[in-house]
Amino acid sequence: MLLQEIATRSRAITFEACPIEALETAKLAILDTIGVTLAGADADSTSTVLKASQRALADGPALLFGSHRRVDVYHAALINGTASHALDFDDCSNTLGGHPSAPIVPALWALAEERGASGADLLSAYIAGVEVETKIGRAVNFHHYEKGWHPTATLGTFGSAAACSHLLGLPIERTTHALSLAVSMSAGVKANFGTMTKPYHVGQSARNGLLAALLAEAGMTANPEALEHPQGFFAIYNGTENCVPGRILDTWAKPLDIVEPGIAFKRHPCCASTHPAVDAILQLRKEHGLLPEDVAHVRSWTHPRRLNHTNRPDPQTGLDGKFSVQYVIARALMHGIVSLEHFSDDAVNEAPVRDLLARIHAEPHPGAIWESTEHFFAEVAVTTHDGRYLKAKIDRPLGRDRHHPLPKGTLERKFLDCASRVLTPNNAEQLSEQLLQLDRVNDTRTLSQLIIDGSVA
Amino acid sequence: MLLQEIATRSRAITFEACPIEALETAKLAILDTIGVTLAGADADSTSTVLKASQRALADGPALLFGSHRRVDVYHAALINGTASHALDFDDCSNTLGGHPSAPIVPALWALAEERGASGADLLSAYIAGVEVETKIGRAVNFHHYEKGWHPTATLGTFGSAAACSHLLGLPIERTTHALSLAVSMSAGVKANFGTMTKPYHVGQSARNGLLAALLAEAGMTANPEALEHPQGFFAIYNGTENCVPGRILDTWAKPLDIVEPGIAFKRHPCCASTHPAVDAILQLRKEHGLLPEDVAHVRSWTHPRRLNHTNRPDPQTGLDGKFSVQYVIARALMHGIVSLEHFSDDAVNEAPVRDLLARIHAEPHPGAIWESTEHFFAEVAVTTHDGRYLKAKIDRPLGRDRHHPLPKGTLERKFLDCASRVLTPNNAEQLSEQLLQLDRVNDTRTLSQLIIDGSVA
Repeated sequence: MLLQEIATRSRAITFEACPIEALETAKLAILDTIGVTLAGADADSTSTVLKASQRALADGPALLFGSHRRVDVYHAALINGTASHALDFDDCSNTLGGHPSAPIVPALWALAEERGASGADLLSAYIAGVEVETKIGRAVNFHHYEKGWHPTATLGTFGSAAACSHLLGLPIERTTHALSLAVSMSAGVKANFGTMTKPYHVGQSARNGLLAALLAEAGMTANPEALEHPQGFFAIYNGTENCVPGRILDTWAKPLDIVEPGIAFKRHPCCASTHPAVDAILQLRKEHGLLPEDVAHVRSWTHPRRLNHTNRPDPQTGLDGKFSVQYVIARALMHGIVSLEHFSDDAVNEAPVRDLLARIHAEPHPGAIWESTEHFFAEVAVTTHDGRYLKAKIDRPLGRDRHHPLPKGTLERKFLDCASRVLTPNNAEQLSEQLLQLDRVNDTRTLSQLIIDGSVA
Repeated sequence: MLLQEIATRSRAITFEACPIEALETAKLAILDTIGVTLAGADADSTSTVLKASQRALADGPALLFGSHRRVDVYHAALINGTASHALDFDDCSNTLGGHPSAPIVPALWALAEERGASGADLLSAYIAGVEVETKIGRAVNFHHYEKGWHPTATLGTFGSAAACSHLLGLPIERTTHALSLAVSMSAGVKANFGTMTKPYHVGQSARNGLLAALLAEAGMTANPEALEHPQGFFAIYNGTENCVPGRILDTWAKPLDIVEPGIAFKRHPCCASTHPAVDAILQLRKEHGLLPEDVAHVRSWTHPRRLNHTNRPDPQTGLDGKFSVQYVIARALMHGIVSLEHFSDDAVNEAPVRDLLARIHAEPHPGAIWESTEHFFAEVAVTTHDGRYLKAKIDRPLGRDRHHPLPKGTLERKFLDCASRVLTPNNAEQLSEQLLQLDRVNDTRTLSQLIIDGSVA
């Protein structure tokens, strides 16, 4: 009855007992997630989910980000959850093999509004959710990821269910049922990457985890052995031969996953697999004062596990562009930054970037070892018209782990960039300050009110 | 792009071109599903889903079965879908490895109310949905079933998505997206059998298929190759080595699955393993005009694989009674029918049935071969007080396939038994008549109105 033990340990995570590093990272992660959710509120995928949901939106306690409207918690989780991943700009966890916060924060935020929860409640529930999804991730990854599941969606459902159960204060038995329900709601395949369905997956997981917790609260029953059962999660989703269930309890809170390896923050609003190449070209650009017109051609070498889905030399849509290592290298080289505005359908078809794209080639790195856990490196070489051959190697993109920190203030600036797309600058700043002191917020509904008051929509 | 071809063929199914046998079976299946949904409206699983949903029910066009309330289509599909499988009394398909109608009819019903669809529209959409889910079933079964997926849930999502897309009249491209979205929503494991989560799976699939169709209508995109993609449905859910994708198109509408092998109907509201013994005693009762007071004792012989979980000479609860071959024989002998009302905790303890139970003995059939696929037979012998020894043998329970049809009028009586739990007898009869002429109903909302008007809740 592994889920019962997980439920017991998840419930035992308290705000008071959380290490300071966990709380600090949690605050940054929630800040970052709220920022990208605000920025993603008017994305095509989000508006499409909203359009299909309009017929069924009930008035309720939960803010629909980027609007003045409060709706029922399920639709808030579904739509805000889609928004949180719409730009693929949200944080990452290599343990999870995906994005740890996007399936959790929108669900928790909605539930916190229903219950009038405090910032401290929200923080400890969030930390519990991240611990559950990442430790289950340790049992099933990377086979789970490589097989083709979308772990942000499949494992994120557990994270959302655990976090919501924690915020509800469900007893162990009901938390167990919620996690077992999450097994029966876990879905999302990588075949749908590169379509609007990818961010939808995340909204679905946020909503499903919340629903699992509220169904369990209402008395729904499910099998406490649904992970290890011969027809349960491990056997069906991974094959038991590809799971190491013991890792969940062995590594539980030793330390918390949010502490080590921690949460990776995205500096660039495109697929994480492209980030090391972007950092490498930015480094060359800065060191050598490169301009696009200097460049004869660019070669990029990344790990094949990262290149498989980012080798898109001829992107046709903004979404395609986000997953094109060639395109984001071009944009970084042109502007010295990759911005949200580069991912419109029009932007990817602009003549200057198309011109540059034709000179950018991506290949698998010849030194890459498929099984290695080191697959976030990149090498980029530029040949200039005046005959120079310039090369840079990046081990890991900045922000990826504690040892490669983002330059100070980067996340706050990113938040203001994101939030100011839908909020007044003043409210965006106030919100940022409040979120960075989330542990002192008595009622998270005051933050939603700040978003509503500042919304320019 | 297999989904595109499936979408093309699904769209090509029209009411006018459907064979008469398909339409006749579809009408019976919809009648039967509406009946069991009405009967399941107050089951624990249904009330629990309703309880967790109350906070988010929006007013809308769609009837919540067993109430006077019309709500949004998604909650109607979720809650009515749970009700449709709550009693495990709904129809079956061996091709699907599960229950073909329960994930489709509640979703279609809700959507038909939103659009004011005709009975003919509903029938052709239903037939398309069943064809899609069963033909995909042919590609993945029985590995899919045996692995531990709950096909009613996983494949039912495709059925619901296809049926709803058909009713919406979505063009091929959007139907394709809806089916690809269904891949990313397909979930439900057998580890959760025996808990309330099993019927919840069906509600989830009904709601998900409906949502997939309405998201696609709103413009959501997904990958048309999501079945055959290396990280798509076949590879991830089954393993490509366990799939025969060619069967989908090869067997498509040759004939329609609803025609051959057809749909299996459940005649008795108890465990399927008890059905042949019930049929045998009913046959003796009818042939010889047997009454309980004539009977000295009854002996029943069934396959040990069926008897293991149904040998319960002394049932204590209603649920126990559903799995007691002795108890259901007693009820069949007393009433000539096994009814839902026989499975309350009080009913199993009534004096007359306890008296008869003491005279009923169940044993494994001496001729049974454990490994044989023929394990749905029964032999029953009655010794009467006046010295007669009467014996009947049944190969397969009636309703199981076309070659063992239900006696005429059986499904209509079953419907009345089910519907009269929540409707007045008069309305239940009117509804039955209308459903049996569904092809002539101009607007299915008139049927929902009949349910509301007749509701005794």
